[in-house]
Amino acid sequence: MKESQSNQVSKFQFKASELAELIDGTLKADPELEINGYRGAGSVSAKQLTYAESDEYLEAAMKNSAGLVLVTADLYQDEIPAIIVDNPKLAYARLARQFPDKRYYKPGIADSAIIGAGFESGEDISIHPGAIIGDNVFIGDRVRIAAGVIIGDNCELGDDILLHPGVKIMAETWIGDRVEIQAGAVIGSDGYGYVSDAGKHYKMPQLGQVVIEDDVEIGALTAIDRAANEKTVIGQGTKIDNLVQIGHNVEAGRDNLIVSQTGIGGSTKLGARVTLAGQAGIEDHIRIADDVTVTGKAKVSKDIKESGFYSGIPAREHREYLKEAAGIRRINKLKKEISDIKGELEEIKNYLKEED
Amino acid sequence: MKESQSNQVSKFQFKASELAELIDGTLKADPELEINGYRGAGSVSAKQLTYAESDEYLEAAMKNSAGLVLVTADLYQDEIPAIIVDNPKLAYARLARQFPDKRYYKPGIADSAIIGAGFESGEDISIHPGAIIGDNVFIGDRVRIAAGVIIGDNCELGDDILLHPGVKIMAETWIGDRVEIQAGAVIGSDGYGYVSDAGKHYKMPQLGQVVIEDDVEIGALTAIDRAANEKTVIGQGTKIDNLVQIGHNVEAGRDNLIVSQTGIGGSTKLGARVTLAGQAGIEDHIRIADDVTVTGKAKVSKDIKESGFYSGIPAREHREYLKEAAGIRRINKLKKEISDIKGELEEIKNYLKEED
Amino acid sequence: MKESQSNQVSKFQFKASELAELIDGTLKADPELEINGYRGAGSVSAKQLTYAESDEYLEAAMKNSAGLVLVTADLYQDEIPAIIVDNPKLAYARLARQFPDKRYYKPGIADSAIIGAGFESGEDISIHPGAIIGDNVFIGDRVRIAAGVIIGDNCELGDDILLHPGVKIMAETWIGDRVEIQAGAVIGSDGYGYVSDAGKHYKMPQLGQVVIEDDVEIGALTAIDRAANEKTVIGQGTKIDNLVQIGHNVEAGRDNLIVSQTGIGGSTKLGARVTLAGQAGIEDHIRIADDVTVTGKAKVSKDIKESGFYSGIPAREHREYLKEAAGIRRINKLKKEISDIKGELEEIKNYLKEED
Repeated sequence: MKESQSNQVSKFQFKASELAELIDGTLKADPELEINGYRGAGSVSAKQLTYAESDEYLEAAMKNSAGLVLVTADLYQDEIPAIIVDNPKLAYARLARQFPDKRYYKPGIADSAIIGAGFESGEDISIHPGAIIGDNVFIGDRVRIAAGVIIGDNCELGDDILLHPGVKIMAETWIGDRVEIQAGAVIGSDGYGYVSDAGKHYKMPQLGQVVIEDDVEIGALTAIDRAANEKTVIGQGTKIDNLVQIGHNVEAGRDNLIVSQTGIGGSTKLGARVTLAGQAGIEDHIRIADDVTVTGKAKVSKDIKESGFYSGIPAREHREYLKEAAGIRRINKLKKEISDIKGELEEIKNYLKEED
Repeated sequence: MKESQSNQVSKFQFKASELAELIDGTLKADPELEINGYRGAGSVSAKQLTYAESDEYLEAAMKNSAGLVLVTADLYQDEIPAIIVDNPKLAYARLARQFPDKRYYKPGIADSAIIGAGFESGEDISIHPGAIIGDNVFIGDRVRIAAGVIIGDNCELGDDILLHPGVKIMAETWIGDRVEIQAGAVIGSDGYGYVSDAGKHYKMPQLGQVVIEDDVEIGALTAIDRAANEKTVIGQGTKIDNLVQIGHNVEAGRDNLIVSQTGIGGSTKLGARVTLAGQAGIEDHIRIADDVTVTGKAKVSKDIKESGFYSGIPAREHREYLKEAAGIRRINKLKKEISDIKGELEEIKNYLKEED
Repeated sequence: MKESQSNQVSKFQFKASELAELIDGTLKADPELEINGYRGAGSVSAKQLTYAESDEYLEAAMKNSAGLVLVTADLYQDEIPAIIVDNPKLAYARLARQFPDKRYYKPGIADSAIIGAGFESGEDISIHPGAIIGDNVFIGDRVRIAAGVIIGDNCELGDDILLHPGVKIMAETWIGDRVEIQAGAVIGSDGYGYVSDAGKHYKMPQLGQVVIEDDVEIGALTAIDRAANEKTVIGQGTKIDNLVQIGHNVEAGRDNLIVSQTGIGGSTKLGARVTLAGQAGIEDHIRIADDVTVTGKAKVSKDIKESGFYSGIPAREHREYLKEAAGIRRINKLKKEISDIKGELEEIKNYLKEED
């Protein structure tokens, strides 16, 4: 499946045959059937796509006269307009991305938007009221910039980007294709770097930039600091939740999942397919290997070199963490056993004394 | 006490008799006395209301020639213009809400505000400079929308709402009466939902909405995600602090207190009168019963079915948590005891050997 | 070194002799050499200042034909244009602050900015597009207000302030000189104060203000609540990172370092030179002495009266915390020892039985 749209203009309607082809599914419906949206089985309607993972989903979809249902061969029933696929939920997620987000499709540049000098853009862009774009900014095709978004000078944005209301992109940021950023996020704030002397702190200049690779998604009110001199990098396909803090010079690898309220200290490097669960904390200058999962609220204080699960403060292998947790629950039992042993020792000593 | 104002127009001045009646207090002052504001005892002035919980408060109020003092029968002294009530602080909080927040009372719609098509509103509204309102938005009476607020398409807001500067309300949000939202909060961001395949993550469409019931208050820079398909609900009377994360499909019950930097995972359901203290974390798909308090920094990983206090990572009953904490502090003492026991055992064995 | 600029107009170019004098360094270059910026050794260019802490830095600086290098006497080599100082990194940080941030230098008031009644300002100010300033606001010299910043009524700001895009300053805030606030931060939101009755919560009026003293820096998306009646104070020289929560009536002392995602409960008072590492939490009404460091993720639940390091939940002296952590790792060993002791006891008892 191609991840990008080849057409220059946003497409809001697909034939059933086109959808089936995009995901290599088996079409069980009129190939000419027009589909103009998607929705969960509980609220789908006649010209929309949905998916079914169980009989319950399928029943709901039929009750709502779904236009087209993604379904496994096992669940499929005759007479239902369907595409048969191995993983209906995955197919649904992938096809949904083919439809541009209508909430932010308002082609052209709103009168009240403020556009700096040297602005260049691709085709079919939407710039909403109150957006403010600095000097020498380039944006690609089908970019949607919602109300109140601010983009600083010298930024470069790829194709098919969606910036939700009030996103703030600081100067010099580079953003790849198909990136989506939720409301209020800040990209490119200055890093937290000071040199201290005699109890006072002096800011080190923060002159680098942020690079957001293709297919990254960033949550609401998340902050990503620019590098001190070089680049803070969010790797391709990485998905970041709300209220996450990413320090300067961080390099996140490909396809990470970084869950809400997690914090990543400066200069830390994450491998590929790393998952950081909610409210995790990673200290400065840490390296984390590929395929590592850090569980919620854990604090990583030293490098993690092997893939696997890590938990606790400080984080260690999850199995070891569980063993320690079990140990803690056992302390009061140990205390009782020690007390019993003392009693027995006392008895033995008394016995021996009497024997003498 | 009626929670809503019956008058269409905001009222900035009340007679002492009106205030006494609103809280069923006993008036000890001229019924015609005009009161036009309120303030703590340390800074109250002649036409303002204050409250006294102790002799110190009362002295301060008198020193500042307070216009009217809420006071208990015990503390009351002749000559002080007062209303006698059982709980002066509570009475103060309830009466203060009768005065609209002057900071945001600028009747009408500022020239620089941008209002979408199909806008409808009640009486006596204030829309400040730089606010941006999408299409098909309805707002009720006495709604105050501060500078730089963004409201998306198809939102419906009740009466007596106050949105502080830079609040972002995404499309399709529904907000009840007497709701107050602090600066920079984001309501209705997309939930964090992905389906993964071969190490890559595909966004599940987030098509639902957020419903904020009556009398809810939301802190600065808090994020509340819209549901995937249905509704994320913040129950009536719930108060949320700053920098809180509320995931998609969460249902918070009535009169919850959710303290700052707490995170609530997707699809979690909270009962009534739940308190989540600062930096608490609740995992996805958890149910918490009525009248539960989760202490600061605790992490709830499984359902809580009984009211009470819960602490720790993972959270358990507070009493059990304290017992474990005491156990941990005892470990080094246990180690010493074991060492002593070993010594005694050695002595006994030596004694028995010699005896042979 | 004077911390403020005496010149009314921003200065973007300095002679080598001026720079050397500002930091009391020994100049080893043409005194008339003009320097117009600064940059790390890896990307410095011919008219820029940099610093070298090692041979590697020095080589990079020379390779890039750095205009001027701050260097120790030990590292200094003939022919390099240099200033010799004891601490090159510190000297670099201090000199960099002499150059105004060019990103936000756009002298004058943008047409699209909205300025309230009674506005007064010093010299050489920059107010960017889409900024919104309320009534009766005063700002000093060389203040830079970036795009989309909102300042409420009755605020007073000193000289040499930089407010990054989308910062929100609520009404009545007072800000000293040389303060820098990163994008999206909220200063002066209402505190989280409620009085509860019969399971319902009533907001206590939040009528105080926030005072930000000189040389304070505040991170992106940080929230600082106004006091209930008096002042929330951020002491001189304190540096706050991103996504930090500071409750109402907090008093932070001088030169604190408050790292990202830390939360400070209402009415807490911090001494001077306090460091709160990432994701720390301080409860309400706590006092922390001077020169205390709270480590990452710790939770302070009672006053800290002695300087030193504190860790854990709840926080205690770091040494004690380490001892307990070591104890926990030892539990399973203790269990084994107890089991061995029981075996030996059994043997002794059997032996004694046989003897009888």
